[in-house]
Amino acid sequence: MGSLTTTRRWVLAKRPAGIPDDTTFALKEQPLPALEEGQVKVRVTHFSLDPGMRPALSQDTYVGATPIGSLITSAGLGVVEESADEKLKVGDLVTGGFGWQSALVAKSRHCVKQNPALFQGRVTPTAAIGILGIPGMTSWFGLKNIATLKEGETVLISSASGPVGATAGQLARLMGAGRVVGIAGSKSKCDWLTGEAGFDACINYRETDNLAVAMRDATGGGADIYFDNVGGEMLDAAITALKPGGRIAVSGQLSEYNNPEPRGIRNTLPFITQRLTMRGFVVLDYVREFAEAGTQMVQWINDGKLLYLEEVIDGIENAPTAYAGLFTGENFGRRLIHVG
Amino acid sequence: MGSLTTTRRWVLAKRPAGIPDDTTFALKEQPLPALEEGQVKVRVTHFSLDPGMRPALSQDTYVGATPIGSLITSAGLGVVEESADEKLKVGDLVTGGFGWQSALVAKSRHCVKQNPALFQGRVTPTAAIGILGIPGMTSWFGLKNIATLKEGETVLISSASGPVGATAGQLARLMGAGRVVGIAGSKSKCDWLTGEAGFDACINYRETDNLAVAMRDATGGGADIYFDNVGGEMLDAAITALKPGGRIAVSGQLSEYNNPEPRGIRNTLPFITQRLTMRGFVVLDYVREFAEAGTQMVQWINDGKLLYLEEVIDGIENAPTAYAGLFTGENFGRRLIHVG
Repeated sequence: MGSLTTTRRWVLAKRPAGIPDDTTFALKEQPLPALEEGQVKVRVTHFSLDPGMRPALSQDTYVGATPIGSLITSAGLGVVEESADEKLKVGDLVTGGFGWQSALVAKSRHCVKQNPALFQGRVTPTAAIGILGIPGMTSWFGLKNIATLKEGETVLISSASGPVGATAGQLARLMGAGRVVGIAGSKSKCDWLTGEAGFDACINYRETDNLAVAMRDATGGGADIYFDNVGGEMLDAAITALKPGGRIAVSGQLSEYNNPEPRGIRNTLPFITQRLTMRGFVVLDYVREFAEAGTQMVQWINDGKLLYLEEVIDGIENAPTAYAGLFTGENFGRRLIHVG
Repeated sequence: MGSLTTTRRWVLAKRPAGIPDDTTFALKEQPLPALEEGQVKVRVTHFSLDPGMRPALSQDTYVGATPIGSLITSAGLGVVEESADEKLKVGDLVTGGFGWQSALVAKSRHCVKQNPALFQGRVTPTAAIGILGIPGMTSWFGLKNIATLKEGETVLISSASGPVGATAGQLARLMGAGRVVGIAGSKSKCDWLTGEAGFDACINYRETDNLAVAMRDATGGGADIYFDNVGGEMLDAAITALKPGGRIAVSGQLSEYNNPEPRGIRNTLPFITQRLTMRGFVVLDYVREFAEAGTQMVQWINDGKLLYLEEVIDGIENAPTAYAGLFTGENFGRRLIHVG
């Protein structure tokens, strides 16, 4: 107690053009303030590396842009080290939007207390900021509320070995989809998806000449739903591989985040002829329903019906390099930093 | 009777690159076949010029493409000249997908018998292939079923002086919209929209430096609905002028129809951050509900609450030139050919 007096934190040093590099971020050490009533001191054990945070780095005009010199945002998992609020005790496991840093003083109401009983069997504590956090909830509500998945439908998923895509594919099956097809960037990723994760088929986009044709073939004549994590050319191809009445859930736009000028899509005409719907969402809009979804997912995880992969990288100093790797396809599963 | 033995018909001579011209179409005269049981002979008085037909001229790969040498498709209004079906009598007024031609022999079940009592007061017979036909129904179902217009919402409409746009704007108001903003290509069009047609504001896109800013200003901070007849750059701008939860009803893509390579949109990222929905439709999916919508529209027309403009051009030989003019913005209201 009291031994934790400083935090090491990554701040935005320079707005990146393209994929962030060594000049984008700067690691600073600064003292933690004294606790006020209603606050807690948290030692962060893990934080997440989120591709969806990338647009906030780019432009001052972007809604919610990260100011230069400000902490990089992310989900975090930690332990309460000191408390000035009766609702949290020393030793409690908490999650929150802690950012890329090793410790913080936060209002206790900005921390979500985690039930340690949850993290047994196949469920690790880091699942709280992974499959049971934003990425998993994005999969769940994207399928249920945005794509409105119905029994027997065919679901096509991009970035399918990423934390959102892999969960979406498995959840689609558990929610009653008839056929689940992933798109990923290597044979080993595809093998895992069609093997362990139970996808019906996987397209390795790096080995495919004509993505649209590959999508139509792999889906068996077209998909009802395209769960989109990528945008751009892949989305354009998927639009031509949807059945009439097809729905696109816009979960992420990975291929656009580093583009100074977005590519977007060319195929708007099929929206009319094929009666397509494209809908984006922010998963925090469904936060009141997270607990119910989480309970079901924990059960499926413990039953061995729902797998998740985590890549835990040691050392806060490795965050920028690990983050850049999200955009070159080197990651496989949820990428986290273990602060250590 | 029997005097009508031939039809003059426009067929597709050559697939156009860009806006159709004199080489695109060819006018042929051919004999009408003898009537068989269940058929009628129709003298066509008027047919429509539809921008939405344009993609079918372009590519053999397009679903529903018009074959070379085939009749150009359109809605038609005509009079029964001979009947071999008890359901239709000589002199009956009928509509149907008659195409660009002066007469035809058709199955009677492919003809919709019109009630002449409807066409009095302010309602002309040509309304049957205009505001009470595909364009008007596109406005109605686009607002109701696709954009799901709610009381008090702000609606932004492109190609607002066209038959779909002008009707959509007036219907939006009659259905409870709080603010209706049009986009059109001349001062006189804008004056008509904000004057006679009761739009709250109109943007003359030819006189606007920054369309996105003009849209945000004219809507008073953003629209709930963008009723899109144009696509491309205008759609891209509108995406940035939608409120959170905004909906785009994709009714037409006028700016794309003549592009060999579609432009599409760049702005897919706001679908996530602003929770946008874009949905296309084919109005014939709602054909069972047309009668109910038509009854309401006739009442509003006769009450002077719903206006429609028609440009009737005399002479079947003028169809190609009149059609090309749809893409340069010279038309104002529903453009029809009076076969004469």
